[in-house]
Amino acid sequence: MILGVDHIGVAVESLDTALRFWQGSLGLTPAHAEAVAAQGVRTVLLPANGVRIELLEPTGPDTPVGKFLARRGPGLHHVCLLVDDLDAALRFLTASGLRLIDALPRSGVEGSRIAFLHPAAGEGVLVELKETVRR
Amino acid sequence: MILGVDHIGVAVESLDTALRFWQGSLGLTPAHAEAVAAQGVRTVLLPANGVRIELLEPTGPDTPVGKFLARRGPGLHHVCLLVDDLDAALRFLTASGLRLIDALPRSGVEGSRIAFLHPAAGEGVLVELKETVRR
Repeated sequence: MILGVDHIGVAVESLDTALRFWQGSLGLTPAHAEAVAAQGVRTVLLPANGVRIELLEPTGPDTPVGKFLARRGPGLHHVCLLVDDLDAALRFLTASGLRLIDALPRSGVEGSRIAFLHPAAGEGVLVELKETVRR
Repeated sequence: MILGVDHIGVAVESLDTALRFWQGSLGLTPAHAEAVAAQGVRTVLLPANGVRIELLEPTGPDTPVGKFLARRGPGLHHVCLLVDDLDAALRFLTASGLRLIDALPRSGVEGSRIAFLHPAAGEGVLVELKETVRR
């Protein structure tokens, strides 16, 4: 079902400060920046050999990432795994009794079809599934 | 400096329970298991298209991962990035004023040479650097 890791989401207080570390110190180069209004987040993606580091800055405290920062501080937020058929994956996981945040696919960055599993399903890890090709 | 992402470290209470999710639900296949006595941890690595998910179960509460679990609960623990020359990377980062956990390389899983940066350096993200080829 899983084809690979697409990106690692990192919750940050400030994209500028985070880029000082990921770009300035580690030398990764931002390849894509996008605001996802529906999620209340500004993102910057930095490729590292196929996998991307996705920096996530909330637009306000009352957003998913804003609440995460208030509760846990900045740091690793989620891991995004690629699937070839998101609808089939969600049907299988629902039938397995796993708890999902998104029972149906919704839109993510770059026009992708995505869905989040609940961290309780992933033993504390927030897992995002992303379909490889937009349909 | 960074060649790519080697693995994503996940702190777990129990390898068996975590494998029910990563292997049983998501279908990833464990490729390597190893106990790292010096770190007080048992690990299982699950490849996902080049990147690995590294499950980390502490051998006791008074270990780095045991303390992490007590403080934050299970979940994403660190991200490991590949570098070609770990000594040069550590010299550069030290000269940049970044806070390191390991100022000198030490041994990681599979006989690798690794070093951890301090989470304060990574804006809350614990970053491990791993040298691509053992020297």
